[in-house]
Amino acid sequence: MKVVTTIREVREQVNAWRQADNSIGLVPTMGFLHEGHQSLMQAAKQDNQKVIVTIFVNPIQFGPSEDLASYPRDLERDKIACEQVGVDLIFCPDASEMYSPNFNSYVDVNELTEALCGKRRPGHFKGVCTVVTKLFNIAQPDRAYFGQKDAQQLAVIKRMVTDLNFNIEIIGCPIVRESDGLAKSSRNSYLSESERVAAVCLYQAIECAKAMIYKGEKSVNVITQAMQELISKQPLAKVDYIEFVDLATLKSVDLLAQDSLCALAVYIGKTRLIDNFIYQHD
Amino acid sequence: MKVVTTIREVREQVNAWRQADNSIGLVPTMGFLHEGHQSLMQAAKQDNQKVIVTIFVNPIQFGPSEDLASYPRDLERDKIACEQVGVDLIFCPDASEMYSPNFNSYVDVNELTEALCGKRRPGHFKGVCTVVTKLFNIAQPDRAYFGQKDAQQLAVIKRMVTDLNFNIEIIGCPIVRESDGLAKSSRNSYLSESERVAAVCLYQAIECAKAMIYKGEKSVNVITQAMQELISKQPLAKVDYIEFVDLATLKSVDLLAQDSLCALAVYIGKTRLIDNFIYQHD
Repeated sequence: MKVVTTIREVREQVNAWRQADNSIGLVPTMGFLHEGHQSLMQAAKQDNQKVIVTIFVNPIQFGPSEDLASYPRDLERDKIACEQVGVDLIFCPDASEMYSPNFNSYVDVNELTEALCGKRRPGHFKGVCTVVTKLFNIAQPDRAYFGQKDAQQLAVIKRMVTDLNFNIEIIGCPIVRESDGLAKSSRNSYLSESERVAAVCLYQAIECAKAMIYKGEKSVNVITQAMQELISKQPLAKVDYIEFVDLATLKSVDLLAQDSLCALAVYIGKTRLIDNFIYQHD
Repeated sequence: MKVVTTIREVREQVNAWRQADNSIGLVPTMGFLHEGHQSLMQAAKQDNQKVIVTIFVNPIQFGPSEDLASYPRDLERDKIACEQVGVDLIFCPDASEMYSPNFNSYVDVNELTEALCGKRRPGHFKGVCTVVTKLFNIAQPDRAYFGQKDAQQLAVIKRMVTDLNFNIEIIGCPIVRESDGLAKSSRNSYLSESERVAAVCLYQAIECAKAMIYKGEKSVNVITQAMQELISKQPLAKVDYIEFVDLATLKSVDLLAQDSLCALAVYIGKTRLIDNFIYQHD
């Protein structure tokens, strides 16, 4: 496994692989890798001859009051996590390698980015689309892998790739959970012991919603209220949003329908966690 | 020479060329081709084994009050112009092939697009950057060719390619002129006989500026005023702007310096024409 920090080195490796007709899978990450990331790498490994993991805490997708400075980093542990899965190349650039002082070009998706997390984190998805475009152009992969946990991000990236004609297949991979149901996330490392216990309420709310839906409930209002109530029993938790939206448009729905996405963001103490599920039957 | 209208057909041809290790040059145009475009194709032909010309009047780079509907089109003549130069592939899609009803992704460059034409044509360069990104991703060329006549466009595209790490070399080609000095432009076809005569005032203003500079004048104010006066003698002409800017930043300069760009836009009747020159010595 190679670990490189410059765009030039990635290009050289990619050119060599292309010359040898190797397919390339890309897994863009912000590092502090967990089993969720590793499941993306495994999928990439299965579909492609070579796998590139990028590790870059992208400053332009963080708002001024967000956790850029404190975002967890551990490159040495990340290298081991990549090695375990048989990753071929890690690209872990500095911010200065990715953004020159004259940098001034941005990629953005309208509408899809105005819902859910986009509404609460202005500029976030513009930062994501821009860095993902850069990573696509640097690594020129055949396929790129994103977690379904970031459901809005996955929808936005798919829209961008279709609209801008990137010749890349986007593959969404299922949420990986801890044994108690908490979705794996690098931000879980922020949680104190008591917060970690409280954090399971996101998953419990999802299970509660699924049970209601299984029994025939279709009203988004009714389901959302039950989820809200369940979470409000947890004193360390504060709901940012719970929403049901159409998976394609991310527009709110009042009644559960084919391909509804239920997404929620909840503060556990100061840590903002997200989770979601997709209702695919009508 | 092949002429295709779908993205799929371009991808198939590009894949075949890539398999055969052919280099590809791209000349993006809006058609109604003239010797200016042909000089780009010739440059592309010299540098690359295969040349793709795209002909697409891109709706999203026109403002609501601009000339999208009347923009001149003549595909049959354009095919001959491409054939003459030995172009390998023309891609001339419909708007519906390029923009699906759900299209919602955009590429934009800040600051550089706020000067000169960008100030007068809000959204124009966002439309240009977006379609050029799409064409880059569809044709995946090694090199792409743009005319120096659209100096701001060239600067913006170069910035975008650097910032977003497109693996493409951008090549600017010199302005091609009519025998009286008028810069070749598809929009020259709008001009009536008397307007065509009047239109030479842009070139005359440039020649006047160059003569003043040759004699040692450095004050942008003094030079601009002389250009303005020269053009104002022409009753069919109305200056939109005459500006001297730094070639890298497109910020206004007061005194002529290394790499100053003098750009002007002038209405001749209802037709807006642009021209420019670069002052490269200090």
